[in-house]
Amino acid sequence: MASDLRTEELKTPVDVAEYLFRRLHEVGVRSIHGLPGDYNLVALDYIPKVGLNWVGNCNELNAGYAADGYARVKGISAIVTTFGVGELSAVNAIAGAYSEFVPIVHIVGYPSTVAQKDGMLLHHTLGNGDFNVFSRMSRQISCAVSLLNDPHEAAVLIDNAIRECYLKSRPVYISLPSDMVQKKIEGERLKTPLDLSYAPNDPEKEDYVVDVVLKYLHAARNPIILVDACAIRHRALQEVHELVEKSGIPTFVAPMGKGAVDETLPNYGGVYAGDGSNKGVRERVESADLVISIGAIKSDFNTAGFTYRISQLNTIDFHSYGIKVRYSEYPGVRMNGVLKKVCEKMGKLNIEHGPKPSNEIPEVELLSPEPTITQAWFWPRLGQWLQENDIVITETGTSNFGIWETRFPAKVNAISQVLWGSIGYATGSCQGAALAAKELGIKRTILFTGDGSFQLTAQEVSTMIRNRLNPIIFVICNDGYTIERFIHGWKDSYNDIQPWEYKALPAVFGAPKDKLLTYRVSSKKEVEELFMDREFSSGDTDKLRFVELVIPWDDAPSALKYTAEAAAKRNAE
Amino acid sequence: MASDLRTEELKTPVDVAEYLFRRLHEVGVRSIHGLPGDYNLVALDYIPKVGLNWVGNCNELNAGYAADGYARVKGISAIVTTFGVGELSAVNAIAGAYSEFVPIVHIVGYPSTVAQKDGMLLHHTLGNGDFNVFSRMSRQISCAVSLLNDPHEAAVLIDNAIRECYLKSRPVYISLPSDMVQKKIEGERLKTPLDLSYAPNDPEKEDYVVDVVLKYLHAARNPIILVDACAIRHRALQEVHELVEKSGIPTFVAPMGKGAVDETLPNYGGVYAGDGSNKGVRERVESADLVISIGAIKSDFNTAGFTYRISQLNTIDFHSYGIKVRYSEYPGVRMNGVLKKVCEKMGKLNIEHGPKPSNEIPEVELLSPEPTITQAWFWPRLGQWLQENDIVITETGTSNFGIWETRFPAKVNAISQVLWGSIGYATGSCQGAALAAKELGIKRTILFTGDGSFQLTAQEVSTMIRNRLNPIIFVICNDGYTIERFIHGWKDSYNDIQPWEYKALPAVFGAPKDKLLTYRVSSKKEVEELFMDREFSSGDTDKLRFVELVIPWDDAPSALKYTAEAAAKRNAE
Repeated sequence: MASDLRTEELKTPVDVAEYLFRRLHEVGVRSIHGLPGDYNLVALDYIPKVGLNWVGNCNELNAGYAADGYARVKGISAIVTTFGVGELSAVNAIAGAYSEFVPIVHIVGYPSTVAQKDGMLLHHTLGNGDFNVFSRMSRQISCAVSLLNDPHEAAVLIDNAIRECYLKSRPVYISLPSDMVQKKIEGERLKTPLDLSYAPNDPEKEDYVVDVVLKYLHAARNPIILVDACAIRHRALQEVHELVEKSGIPTFVAPMGKGAVDETLPNYGGVYAGDGSNKGVRERVESADLVISIGAIKSDFNTAGFTYRISQLNTIDFHSYGIKVRYSEYPGVRMNGVLKKVCEKMGKLNIEHGPKPSNEIPEVELLSPEPTITQAWFWPRLGQWLQENDIVITETGTSNFGIWETRFPAKVNAISQVLWGSIGYATGSCQGAALAAKELGIKRTILFTGDGSFQLTAQEVSTMIRNRLNPIIFVICNDGYTIERFIHGWKDSYNDIQPWEYKALPAVFGAPKDKLLTYRVSSKKEVEELFMDREFSSGDTDKLRFVELVIPWDDAPSALKYTAEAAAKRNAE
Repeated sequence: MASDLRTEELKTPVDVAEYLFRRLHEVGVRSIHGLPGDYNLVALDYIPKVGLNWVGNCNELNAGYAADGYARVKGISAIVTTFGVGELSAVNAIAGAYSEFVPIVHIVGYPSTVAQKDGMLLHHTLGNGDFNVFSRMSRQISCAVSLLNDPHEAAVLIDNAIRECYLKSRPVYISLPSDMVQKKIEGERLKTPLDLSYAPNDPEKEDYVVDVVLKYLHAARNPIILVDACAIRHRALQEVHELVEKSGIPTFVAPMGKGAVDETLPNYGGVYAGDGSNKGVRERVESADLVISIGAIKSDFNTAGFTYRISQLNTIDFHSYGIKVRYSEYPGVRMNGVLKKVCEKMGKLNIEHGPKPSNEIPEVELLSPEPTITQAWFWPRLGQWLQENDIVITETGTSNFGIWETRFPAKVNAISQVLWGSIGYATGSCQGAALAAKELGIKRTILFTGDGSFQLTAQEVSTMIRNRLNPIIFVICNDGYTIERFIHGWKDSYNDIQPWEYKALPAVFGAPKDKLLTYRVSSKKEVEELFMDREFSSGDTDKLRFVELVIPWDDAPSALKYTAEAAAKRNAE
């Protein structure tokens, strides 16, 4: 049971829930995702009080995906669910954020500490009096768990959870029992902002590593830089940009690192994913005498089925948890400081220039008289339509592989879930990303999902409408789970889906007629016309745009085909 | 790694996946719920081979709810998901089934045993090489976990999981690694059906308990029977029916026991839930000198906030795990055998007759000139429209409380989730229940959900259409989460929802015009006309019927009001 602090001993009494939401506001959160439930209702009253916005999602899984998308744009996010039923629905989204290093504060409204202590047979329980079973489950996918059962430790536990969330860039779990919400705690702490800076490296050790790196860098004649997801997720992009620009070293990204590098730079070379890369990229990367690998996550789908052909003897790995030079490991040395010093001390390098990226529309597609939209034609073409600062969300499936072939303007934020790969993610994520974009004044949020994937989380388009967001949504209509067909079950009915009238949905979800534009494009010509349409392309409209993009069911980006084949082999071995 | 059995030593070699699906067929499963994913695709090939039907849900949570509904009609069900992303999305549904004793076999397609052993960095993992993290989570909500990593033990583990699932009436978890699917095992075992009978009670102990029960029963002058959920879920309904009919003892049901008793019997008295019951019922139950309580789950929402006024000194509790007579406990004696013998040996009782149940339309409602549909008017009126053998699914919210006031015809199967209480459940469950009904030749499956709840899982209407099911769906349009408003946040925006054109959805989800009827009813007169409409009410049509039932936002069944008030108090204490 929560024992009270003596209010008269508090300098600036503040309620536990208010403390929590003020801290979230302090670290940059402006909107809270989630659903109401009777164990969290009183806490929700504090959201408007501290200047936060309540999103009100359609379900908790979608809310979790949305919080993930929001965090990838704003740096951190928060979701509120209710005990048992609510939190468990969000578990897949939270696991995805854990897997892909996305910082989400998951706040769960709990039954009162009295009810917990008495083991009461309450709704939303397993009926066995165990109130810790769900936190035990979430412990597996959280980098900190704070159970707020006592006002004396509430502030410390809240502060610790939010710091861990930010610094480790992974979800944390906070229980908020209903009787704790209004308990008074010391508000003076709020005058000292949370320290969100990374612990600095040991200077001597850092300098040592910098020297080792520089030794290999200066000896290299044709080094390349390969940037991957953890450079984004562990906030090393500024250091990476400096290194890439100052050094002029040919730079590539892994699929999960897409968007990390300014693709308009002359030394940007394209996407490297082993045998899934195009020939020019592959040859350039694999013939390098030094690979400066930053933030790598060498998962199957990020490497086209483990097909990197890069020797560790030619590699320097930069990570948040340490540096590895060839086989020499330097644990506990964070990449950020090392990259910064390497940049400062680099001096003159003798670098061969790499090839220009070849991701333009392939000639065979350009010359084809076939009007049908193909994946090989569409994704490079998309690059010419995108604008600086766009947020581009791609779903696991053809979109996540197709986007390899899209050359971005500067400052595009590319959101995808290549490692976790939960279909349905992208539509939820788009809601969160579009809301974050609105808060930041970013003009366009663009979603690419497939018809199969869209069906899992379609109702979050309703949440977009409710929150007056105006993303541009492309649903690729290709009659089912195409990525799975390429792995197994080419024409099997389990890869089919129920046909929907997709573009009728926003109106059914309550979109006003004057705030909605819908399209169905089935030919290259129609795509060209769509891309030329000013109203469609505008970053200044308040209209949600919804496109059915018709592509044949049996077409896929070549990288997908390659990766799917490797996956099918591995499944059978 | 899965070592092979020597195929030449097998009398009747059968693939692991075929063995599994044949066992499921044997215990009565005819349809498998779930979604495809690359780790389960090869297994899905076996479903049509053994004469099973693949449902193909829109997402895994919905598939889990559907499997729950299917099991409540057919006795057991199965769902197939894929590793990580798929299984975690279903966790809330599985937890609900654990909480409410519903037997679901959850089969999860796993990466190959080789990939697991090597700790490969695969998609759908947390990226840490731990392939057991998700089974650890599911262990919390499963009564058995069978990880099929070795063909030598596969058959035993499958048989054990299915038996445990059935006998304990709770979910089990089976991992099926992709390289195990086609491994050969001994098919001779399949010639011996699984033994699904409950272990008999120790005869001496059972006779002893029967004598004790009979002693109190014969001494009683005005006993009552109170039937609750576990009588249904632990398969004691036949024994209960015999006792109720033979004894003539006034019989009541708890909310979770609704449908367990033939409500047309003269000794059926209505729903008892403490202070939430109507006056006549409450007085009769609470003045009884003996309460024969069968399968009780005394949760907050099942007892209108723990307001039973029944002394343990007057109570005999019958459970699946034991009997309790006053304070004397008899653990390990299952209720079924005891009830049967009590019935046989009962002889003549001297029973006072109870009052007739008073759940007819209240006079104040009947006489009201107000055309608006009220909860107090609707639920009793519904009872006059229901038919024998109907399946009636009610959602957590106003429906779950309103249904207390509906007197059923005989043999109605009432499905709800009063203990777990996950909103969104009912729509998913309706898909599974309607499919089970179709398989059994049951004519009408009727869903009551609220607009807020419907939004969580709306796309499962698509799965109903895809599987050519024709339930009657009522969406109560009352502008948001009314049950929550009664707990906290009466007019707060977090209890609002986005307004949808609900009845436009089935057509968007691909329902053919000639297989669909939609309605919007806003007055009592329109409800009367709807209930008189033959086509609408028919059990022999192939048309899905979808009704928007408009009820004021601030109206709720009185039992809900009472329970919500108690919940709000408990949350604050």
